[in-house]
Amino acid sequence: MSAMTPFKLLTSYEKALTIIQKTLRPIDRIESIPIETAHDRLLAKDLLADISVPPFRRAAMDGYAVKAKETFHASTTKPKRLKLVDKIHAGDSTDRSLKSKECIQVATGSPLPKNADAVVMVEYTSFQGGVVNIFRPVYPGSNISPKGEDIEKGTMVLKKNDLLIPAKIGVLAALGYTHIEVYAKPQVIVISTGSEVRKIGSKLESGQIYDVNSYTISAILKENGAIPVPHSPVKDNHEEIKSVIANSLDYELIVISGGSSVGERDLLSHVVEEMGKIIFHGVQVKPGKPTLFGIIDETPIFGMPGYPTSCLSNS
Amino acid sequence: MSAMTPFKLLTSYEKALTIIQKTLRPIDRIESIPIETAHDRLLAKDLLADISVPPFRRAAMDGYAVKAKETFHASTTKPKRLKLVDKIHAGDSTDRSLKSKECIQVATGSPLPKNADAVVMVEYTSFQGGVVNIFRPVYPGSNISPKGEDIEKGTMVLKKNDLLIPAKIGVLAALGYTHIEVYAKPQVIVISTGSEVRKIGSKLESGQIYDVNSYTISAILKENGAIPVPHSPVKDNHEEIKSVIANSLDYELIVISGGSSVGERDLLSHVVEEMGKIIFHGVQVKPGKPTLFGIIDETPIFGMPGYPTSCLSNS
Repeated sequence: MSAMTPFKLLTSYEKALTIIQKTLRPIDRIESIPIETAHDRLLAKDLLADISVPPFRRAAMDGYAVKAKETFHASTTKPKRLKLVDKIHAGDSTDRSLKSKECIQVATGSPLPKNADAVVMVEYTSFQGGVVNIFRPVYPGSNISPKGEDIEKGTMVLKKNDLLIPAKIGVLAALGYTHIEVYAKPQVIVISTGSEVRKIGSKLESGQIYDVNSYTISAILKENGAIPVPHSPVKDNHEEIKSVIANSLDYELIVISGGSSVGERDLLSHVVEEMGKIIFHGVQVKPGKPTLFGIIDETPIFGMPGYPTSCLSNS
Repeated sequence: MSAMTPFKLLTSYEKALTIIQKTLRPIDRIESIPIETAHDRLLAKDLLADISVPPFRRAAMDGYAVKAKETFHASTTKPKRLKLVDKIHAGDSTDRSLKSKECIQVATGSPLPKNADAVVMVEYTSFQGGVVNIFRPVYPGSNISPKGEDIEKGTMVLKKNDLLIPAKIGVLAALGYTHIEVYAKPQVIVISTGSEVRKIGSKLESGQIYDVNSYTISAILKENGAIPVPHSPVKDNHEEIKSVIANSLDYELIVISGGSSVGERDLLSHVVEEMGKIIFHGVQVKPGKPTLFGIIDETPIFGMPGYPTSCLSNS
């Protein structure tokens, strides 16, 4: 039955955001995770390619590996005739080389004979009696993917803070990485206060309601790349709230809802003042006005309005 | 060293999409999951509220529960004086009622005395010697949240196929649900083919490259709400590919990359023709032309280009 204090000066929405951005520091914890789970994470260091991709010269088309000069002047009416002496499959290791007037059948992805310098596409050939007829000339380098065509060894392929979208996951796979160092997601403890608030799954007694805010806040945190750690509802009691916060200072952020309106139950602001510093309390938005932002022992803390709609709209 | 068949008619991109949409059927498997993990899932059935939220009449402000008519004509100069006889905290169960000229202190969320019909905000009162001075009249219903104000028992609050955004997770929590029935995510087996393709983590021998496609495709599948199940790379061999597909028909979708270009290695289209039906093969997009779509025993199958960039752009 004590006096109640009205909100002092409200902070504008834009100013509140700026203050928050200036106060919060990015997570610098790094963790190594399998690339299968790295999607949408932030890379923690620059990455140099330690192999070339592909790591060997290979055929870019299905056809025949040749010495280009042996196809010069070929035409439909006067095809060049090369003896088919072998076949190299994709995945084969080869140390073959071509002798004069020879060709070797290759498929897209096959490594090439050492001294072949072009591939004639199968569409411009015919095959008969051990001999390939070539109807069009090719230039040196035609239909060949040089070693390192996709990624050259030693180049910086990904940068610190890159967001790992599917294409970048592909780069990691191409280089053979199984694990990668990314910034850890912030661990955020989510606390609902209110002596009338009960955890879902319990039976409501008269005068009680279910906790809503810790579920909506957790969903929003997940959506934004954090790991929410829900706490069971805490009674409107100065000492209990203080003790829960004291035990939560190892988290990277504390989000606590309820108890942040003006009134006898405005316990949170007193607790934050006692334990640390209130940076702002009261934002010029509706609903959501009683939002509080403070810092305790370097751990930022948000006090959200207790009423679910207000809480949600300000999360 | 066999003949190679060129692409027949290419399907336009728009037509390909329409065909896919007509052919695929939504997953009808339903699973029950904790609401903490229900974010972004699709609700599998309509949901009626089986309790009212709030389940009791409560104070919407901090102040004093009164009989409204006893505040009529109150003013700053002529306050109405009511005896403060009790205090009801949020979370309390109460069977109090007010006698004439009495009031009871309440906080936002407190249940109300049976015969109180309004709450006077603390801002318009002063307290002295056991008596509350009321400076403004209130109307019946002022500053009171009626039972069921947020959700009325029996109303349909969520519908089948609703996407569970944070606000809807909040509705589930408000009603006390711990678990909820949602549609299962499609399980998709992701297979890379290519005799030269090796799983990341293995050492590359000459002529080999790392599997890229199963990682990029898996990331894209996750992004789109599916569960990718990666298979180790499969050699370019008719019988091996056939056997892997035969063992994958219990999945809701098969995505297989490589081997879908025209060439001797165009094994996939032969396998699909043998086991089921090709719906289209070849799409008018670049890169990504050789994309194949078919169906085997009611399981849809996509054949993606083997070259990582083409594969990614068509996923």
